[in-house]
Amino acid sequence: MTPIYDRVALIGLGLIAGSMGLAMQRAGLVREITGYARTAKTRETAARLGLVTRVCDSAAEAAEGADLVVLCVPVGAMGAVAAEIAPALKPGATVSDVGSVKRSVFDAVTPHVPEGVHFVAAHPMAGTEHSGPESGFAELFDNRWCLIVPPEGADPAAVDRLERFWRGLGSNTERMEVEHHDLVCAVVSHVPHLIAYTMVGVADDFRRVSEQEVIKFSAAGFRDFTRIAASDPTMWRDVFMTNKEATLEILGRFTEELFALQRAIRTGDGQHLFDYFTHTRAIRRGIIDAGQDTAAPDFGRGARKQ
Amino acid sequence: MTPIYDRVALIGLGLIAGSMGLAMQRAGLVREITGYARTAKTRETAARLGLVTRVCDSAAEAAEGADLVVLCVPVGAMGAVAAEIAPALKPGATVSDVGSVKRSVFDAVTPHVPEGVHFVAAHPMAGTEHSGPESGFAELFDNRWCLIVPPEGADPAAVDRLERFWRGLGSNTERMEVEHHDLVCAVVSHVPHLIAYTMVGVADDFRRVSEQEVIKFSAAGFRDFTRIAASDPTMWRDVFMTNKEATLEILGRFTEELFALQRAIRTGDGQHLFDYFTHTRAIRRGIIDAGQDTAAPDFGRGARKQ
Repeated sequence: MTPIYDRVALIGLGLIAGSMGLAMQRAGLVREITGYARTAKTRETAARLGLVTRVCDSAAEAAEGADLVVLCVPVGAMGAVAAEIAPALKPGATVSDVGSVKRSVFDAVTPHVPEGVHFVAAHPMAGTEHSGPESGFAELFDNRWCLIVPPEGADPAAVDRLERFWRGLGSNTERMEVEHHDLVCAVVSHVPHLIAYTMVGVADDFRRVSEQEVIKFSAAGFRDFTRIAASDPTMWRDVFMTNKEATLEILGRFTEELFALQRAIRTGDGQHLFDYFTHTRAIRRGIIDAGQDTAAPDFGRGARKQ
Repeated sequence: MTPIYDRVALIGLGLIAGSMGLAMQRAGLVREITGYARTAKTRETAARLGLVTRVCDSAAEAAEGADLVVLCVPVGAMGAVAAEIAPALKPGATVSDVGSVKRSVFDAVTPHVPEGVHFVAAHPMAGTEHSGPESGFAELFDNRWCLIVPPEGADPAAVDRLERFWRGLGSNTERMEVEHHDLVCAVVSHVPHLIAYTMVGVADDFRRVSEQEVIKFSAAGFRDFTRIAASDPTMWRDVFMTNKEATLEILGRFTEELFALQRAIRTGDGQHLFDYFTHTRAIRRGIIDAGQDTAAPDFGRGARKQ
C-alpha cells in the first residue's frame, strides 16, 4: 500500500496509541511513526515493544515534521498538549485526536492550531478494559467504528485523508457533527459506563453480601458490568467532566425509566415488566446481525466447545 | 461413575433443563431421564435433540417413580407444578428446582410436598442470553456455581446427594440459607439485569439517537448490557415479582450512589469520580483471579488472535 502519510506522530502512548502504531505497521500505512509519552517508563515500554519507530523526548520533538499528529491523551489534557506542539507543526500537517468527547476537545485544541494546519477530530470506538502501552494490539480497530468529526469548513482533502487512514487501521468510518457525536456517545458509552461503575461500587460496598460472594457468583450477570467498570479512571473522569450536558440528560432519562420499573416491581405490575423485557430483546438481535458482537452464548466465553 | 440417582425427572425443558439432561448423560450420572414440557413443540424438540431419555405427556407421568424431580419452570409456575406432581411422587424421592429466587419457591412448593418426600432447593448460577431447549449444552454448568438451599431440618443424606449430583453436572456448589440467597442474588444478578434492561430501553427510546446508531456503535460499552437484557422475559418478570424486597433494597442503594456520581458530574467534582472509578477496578481483578471470567481483552471476543 502507498503510505497515506509519510510521518505520523502519536502523543501519548497508551492502549489506543499503541494499537494504532501496531496497526499502521501491519498495514504499511506510513513511513515513520514518532511517539512521545509523559513518563520514561511508558516511553521505554513503547520502544521495547516497537509500537512506534522512534520514541522522542518531548511532544514537540515527536510532532516536528509530522504529516499527522494524533493526540492520544485524556480529554482533559488535550489543550495543554496542543499548546506545546503548536510551534513545531509543519504547514499542511493535520492535527487529530482519539478523544471520547468532541465539543470540549474542539474548544481546547482549536485555539492552538496554527494557520495552515488542519484540525480534524476522530474517535475510534474501540477499547478494552486494559490500559497502558503493553495492552495495545494491531487488531483493536478491526471492524470497529471510527467517527470522523471535522469542524465546520474543514479542508475536504485533509478529512478524506484522515478517513482513509482510519480505514487502513481496520476501522469502519462515519462522519458525524460534533454535538451529535457527544450525544450518541453519552447513550452508547458514557452513561453505560457510569451505571456499570455504580453497580460495581454498590456491590462492593454492601456489607451483608461479602466481596468474596460477589466475586464468586458474578457470572449470574454482575460480571458483565465489571469489564467496563475496570476501564481507565483518568480517561473516564475526563469524559464525565467534559460531556456533562449530554451525560446528565441521558442519566435523567435512565432514572425516569428505572423508577417506572421500580414502581412496577413494588406494585406487582408483572405485565409492565414483561412487555419491557420483551422489547429490549430485539435490540440484542440487531447488534449481533450488525456484526458488533458474537451470538455465541456468554460471548463465547468459557466451557462451550464451538 | 455409579449413578447418583436411578431416575431423574425434569419438569420444564428450557435452557437449564436441556443443559442438565445433556450434562447428566455426559457424566453418566443417572440411569434414566424423563422430561415434560407444556408445549408439544418443546417436547418434540427435546426428544429430537436427546435432551432426556424419555419424553412424557404430563408432569405427573414424568415424576412418577423418579428419585429426583427437578422443577425447571419459571418461579411463578412452581407452585402449580408442585401441586400437579405431588400425587405421583414416590416415598424417599427428592423434589428440587432451579429457580433464581428461593423464599417464594419455598412458600409455593413446600405445602405440596408429601410426607416422606424431601424438598431441597438449588440454584445453578449459569445461563446464557438464549432460552428454549435448543439452547442447552452439556458444558453450561462447568466451573459455575450451584447454590444448594435446604430448608431447615432437611434430611442431610438428601442434601448431600443433591450436592453430589450438581458437582457431577460440572458445578461448584455452596450451601446457603434461603434469605441470604435472595439477597446475594439481588446484588449479583437481579438488580444488574434490571439496570441492563433499563439502559437498553432508554437507548431504544431516545429519538435523537437512531436505533441504527445505537446498534452500530454499541461496542463502546452498551453492548455488554444487551446480552443480559436479552434474557428470557417470563423468567425475569417472575424474579422481580417474587424477590421484591431484596431487589428494592439494592435498587435503593444503587440510585443513592448514582445520584452521588451525578452530583459530582454536575458540580465538576473530578476527584470523587476518579476515586470511585479506581476503586471499582479492583473488583474486576478479583473476578478474573477467581476463574469466573476471562482476562482476554473484550472477553476474548472478536479480532484479537490469542
